[in-house]
Amino acid sequence: MTTIHDDPEDFADDQFAGWLALYADRVRGVHGGAVALRTADAAPQVAVVIGGGSGHYPAFCGTVGPGFATGAVVGNVFTSPSAAQVYSVAKAADQGRGVVLSFGNYAGDTMNFGLAAERLNAEGIDTRIVIVTDDIASSDDESKRRGIAGDFSVFKAMGAAAAEGVDLDEVERIGNASNTATRTLGVAFSGCTMPGADTPLFSVPEGHLGLGLGIHGEPGIEDVPMLRAKDLADLFVDRLLADRPANAGTRVAPILNGLGDTKYEELFLLWRHVAARLADAGITTVEPEVGEIVTSLDMGGCSLTLQWLDDELERLWRADAYTPAYRKAAAPVAALVVPSDDDLADDAEDTVPDATDAARHAADTARAVLAAMHTLLRENEEELGRIDAVAGDGDHGRGMLKGIGAATKRVDRIGTEAGVAFVLGRAGDAWAEYAGGTSGVLWGAALESFGRSLGDSRDEYTAADVADAATAFADAIQHLGGAGRGDKTLLDALLPFVDELHQRVGAGEGLPSAWKAAAEVATREAEATRELRPKVGRARPLAEKSIGTPDAGATSMGMILTTIGDVLADRTEGTHA
Amino acid sequence: MTTIHDDPEDFADDQFAGWLALYADRVRGVHGGAVALRTADAAPQVAVVIGGGSGHYPAFCGTVGPGFATGAVVGNVFTSPSAAQVYSVAKAADQGRGVVLSFGNYAGDTMNFGLAAERLNAEGIDTRIVIVTDDIASSDDESKRRGIAGDFSVFKAMGAAAAEGVDLDEVERIGNASNTATRTLGVAFSGCTMPGADTPLFSVPEGHLGLGLGIHGEPGIEDVPMLRAKDLADLFVDRLLADRPANAGTRVAPILNGLGDTKYEELFLLWRHVAARLADAGITTVEPEVGEIVTSLDMGGCSLTLQWLDDELERLWRADAYTPAYRKAAAPVAALVVPSDDDLADDAEDTVPDATDAARHAADTARAVLAAMHTLLRENEEELGRIDAVAGDGDHGRGMLKGIGAATKRVDRIGTEAGVAFVLGRAGDAWAEYAGGTSGVLWGAALESFGRSLGDSRDEYTAADVADAATAFADAIQHLGGAGRGDKTLLDALLPFVDELHQRVGAGEGLPSAWKAAAEVATREAEATRELRPKVGRARPLAEKSIGTPDAGATSMGMILTTIGDVLADRTEGTHA
Repeated sequence: MTTIHDDPEDFADDQFAGWLALYADRVRGVHGGAVALRTADAAPQVAVVIGGGSGHYPAFCGTVGPGFATGAVVGNVFTSPSAAQVYSVAKAADQGRGVVLSFGNYAGDTMNFGLAAERLNAEGIDTRIVIVTDDIASSDDESKRRGIAGDFSVFKAMGAAAAEGVDLDEVERIGNASNTATRTLGVAFSGCTMPGADTPLFSVPEGHLGLGLGIHGEPGIEDVPMLRAKDLADLFVDRLLADRPANAGTRVAPILNGLGDTKYEELFLLWRHVAARLADAGITTVEPEVGEIVTSLDMGGCSLTLQWLDDELERLWRADAYTPAYRKAAAPVAALVVPSDDDLADDAEDTVPDATDAARHAADTARAVLAAMHTLLRENEEELGRIDAVAGDGDHGRGMLKGIGAATKRVDRIGTEAGVAFVLGRAGDAWAEYAGGTSGVLWGAALESFGRSLGDSRDEYTAADVADAATAFADAIQHLGGAGRGDKTLLDALLPFVDELHQRVGAGEGLPSAWKAAAEVATREAEATRELRPKVGRARPLAEKSIGTPDAGATSMGMILTTIGDVLADRTEGTHA
Repeated sequence: MTTIHDDPEDFADDQFAGWLALYADRVRGVHGGAVALRTADAAPQVAVVIGGGSGHYPAFCGTVGPGFATGAVVGNVFTSPSAAQVYSVAKAADQGRGVVLSFGNYAGDTMNFGLAAERLNAEGIDTRIVIVTDDIASSDDESKRRGIAGDFSVFKAMGAAAAEGVDLDEVERIGNASNTATRTLGVAFSGCTMPGADTPLFSVPEGHLGLGLGIHGEPGIEDVPMLRAKDLADLFVDRLLADRPANAGTRVAPILNGLGDTKYEELFLLWRHVAARLADAGITTVEPEVGEIVTSLDMGGCSLTLQWLDDELERLWRADAYTPAYRKAAAPVAALVVPSDDDLADDAEDTVPDATDAARHAADTARAVLAAMHTLLRENEEELGRIDAVAGDGDHGRGMLKGIGAATKRVDRIGTEAGVAFVLGRAGDAWAEYAGGTSGVLWGAALESFGRSLGDSRDEYTAADVADAATAFADAIQHLGGAGRGDKTLLDALLPFVDELHQRVGAGEGLPSAWKAAAEVATREAEATRELRPKVGRARPLAEKSIGTPDAGATSMGMILTTIGDVLADRTEGTHA
């Protein structure tokens, strides 16, 4: 959704005015666009003037500056600038050594930049045109392809060449060579919304992606079922390798580009697979760029660009640049020392301490409990997230699942000779480590305390021992979390549970039925947190919103205690059967 | 929507592995996070270890490097890293001069970083904690506030100080001073979607924004009606000024931060208003950052941070840094020469050429036609966009409206002494300039040709003259666009119109009724483009999708010709009345 604007009709002009104000120390606004400021002693260079519509930032004005474009023409959103705008920017950018106009292959841009070139040439300013045609999905005929994220690769090569001081013929030659060497394939997940519009320009059918996206809100050319990250990476790499240019070598400058709504973390995740697939194919990647390079407002999607490098293109790709949105310097990285493999050694294998038969039997119960909790939390992840999202950050279900998942995985690696204290101690470590967050620390420490309270050396574990362990569990949480009853936390379910359990066990009731009754109390009290105002934790700033919704931590505590009761009952029945 | 992932449970680990692979030349992965590589001759410095959950890129690992953080701990999505992770990264980052752990104020982070600090101090590594509390919406008590985008300001100050070589006490002091000087207010437009989830963590009621957002998918603290950009900027600035710290000076380092879905162009637009409001209040902005600094996956929203500068904080804010996501160097900008005001002079005022009474009368008709077109296109902007979005970029309605809007505005500035050729010539110039794109160039050139064909020197304008002008209009489009009948462009409506008009006018029919009948042909032929495959223009790559939908340009042409017919009929009636 494009939300921030004044009059939507003026969006492109308004945003550009803000950008000019922001970078007034390094660019000069002229009619139709921006021109890079020069240093006092700068030798004149060929002007590389790039452009196209707005809505693609950092393309195009974000890359005006030393080592990159000399000027950028800024059209309306997803619309070519006019010939008069191109003319104006080119005229201001010209340093007496001629101008290259470069842009992606669209009819409007071709027409307007073409008209401007005619006028500039007629006035004696030698002007050439380099059109970018990197989108392999848009046509089998290379000359008819659209220009998408490969714009960046081609502009960069020309900008670096112009900064080296070569003449107009050379910059034009390098631009065309760079374009021939540059191929892109993209996919769309969701359409972008134009300023002032209520709905996106297009949508991709549920569970699909649009293969062969455009960068002006064009949907993909073909809808295909959604792919896992690994398969998406394979598709990108395989199709681009199949379409590699004649004389392609083995070195590429890749761009993994996000269109706007697709975020950095997703791109990093995808990059790992892309890099592996390219390496498998014997391709070396050179200074890859992963991020937002050529966007399309808030469109969901990404593209992979490969520029096939020869020595010349590699030198130009690696060259320094300093622009508002793209800054690169070789020296700071070259000076770093990549260390020898002195990483901390892995933890030594656990030595399992001695345990009694009873402790090993209790460990079996603990494993069964953890397995049942895993199933429970997997089934309730979304529900817990929903409750937490009312006034918290919505990560409770996810964090709990991550914790129990790590705990069970860790416990699976422990042999059957281990006792309950050891098993729960390692489960707690893993929970705290992988769940992270408050509840992760608390659950991790509490499990470890529960196990420590039981120990591995008893010959029998009584119902009273278990009730004491439950107290140790609750104490750990109170000590570490600093909360108490009525603060709208998991303690509002846990503390009444512990009280009820002690009372019943003290009165001689068996563990399974005492636990079950106490769990019912916990569930009831969890539900009653609905009326409370949170006093600690992340939900505190949103206290008002929280009223009317139970605490997520108390809710999951009630669920878990109930499930444990079921496991205890089953195992007792099994014993008696 | 967070779309790209493998197993959603492993999202945080998977994305971090990709990031580490990408920046292996400048960071070292350790258990729980990353540590900056050092240069061979680097003097030991205080380690500044930052962190928190994943999902905030470039926070937190994106700012590990020279001049910024020494290490970053990387938790699960929106979840604190565990104490063991913090310990591991801090241990690897320590250079023998002590460690500052710094993070936003959340219970989980406070607990885990706190536990790690206890362990590090117990092992003899002098470790301090600096907690960021910049979010003014989260509490009136400054010490209880959450940390949001101000994290960046505080970490930057400490990173720059540590790079200067000061000792641990100094880095800690500067961190706390920087935090006291840093205030943020944010708004949410839409919630983010966790990896693997189908729905966002929250949604803001239609037409509202959530004031006081959190960065972990927490909704705003208070829903308020949506604001125009100007009003949003005023709200940000006014509330932050009202909450300025004691001893605040008049210089600030601002961050206008996008949360993920809110794009650069929107932030630039907003920045203009923010900068103006701050200037009005007598505040000087120092090297503002506008972009994605601390995100929340694909959340829609933004925040404004102000760090109130003294000489020390200003020096640290301006200091160079070179990290994966944030690179700053003073030298390249300092060397630039800001030019004297040698911008191209504005176009000289138009000199209106002589015109006959008939030409002036025809100009009145032309103005009436343009006004009616403006109304028509305003009403049909969305519909035309929708048609164009099927196989094009969806900008047709917008481009046409922009063109006619500029044309009418331009014509309004021309005096009543001007004739029809002059009026339509200027209308065409403005249309081409402001509409941009293919249709902008074509419509601009065509209007100018229509006017030129009529001229300003006739004593009478006959129906045949108008038909000839329509031919000139169509010729301009054919010449410039290179398309013909059957290519699924506006010509499929226009050419049959011109033929019909000539035939009827030639047969002696009056202009209004001949035009009306010809416009009906145009509308019918526009509708018939539904069956055609596009052969030129942006819709070409999507030819298959286009079948079944009429061409947007032909559709608008049919509408406009019909509207012009109505104007001609009205004006004829008026004359006879």
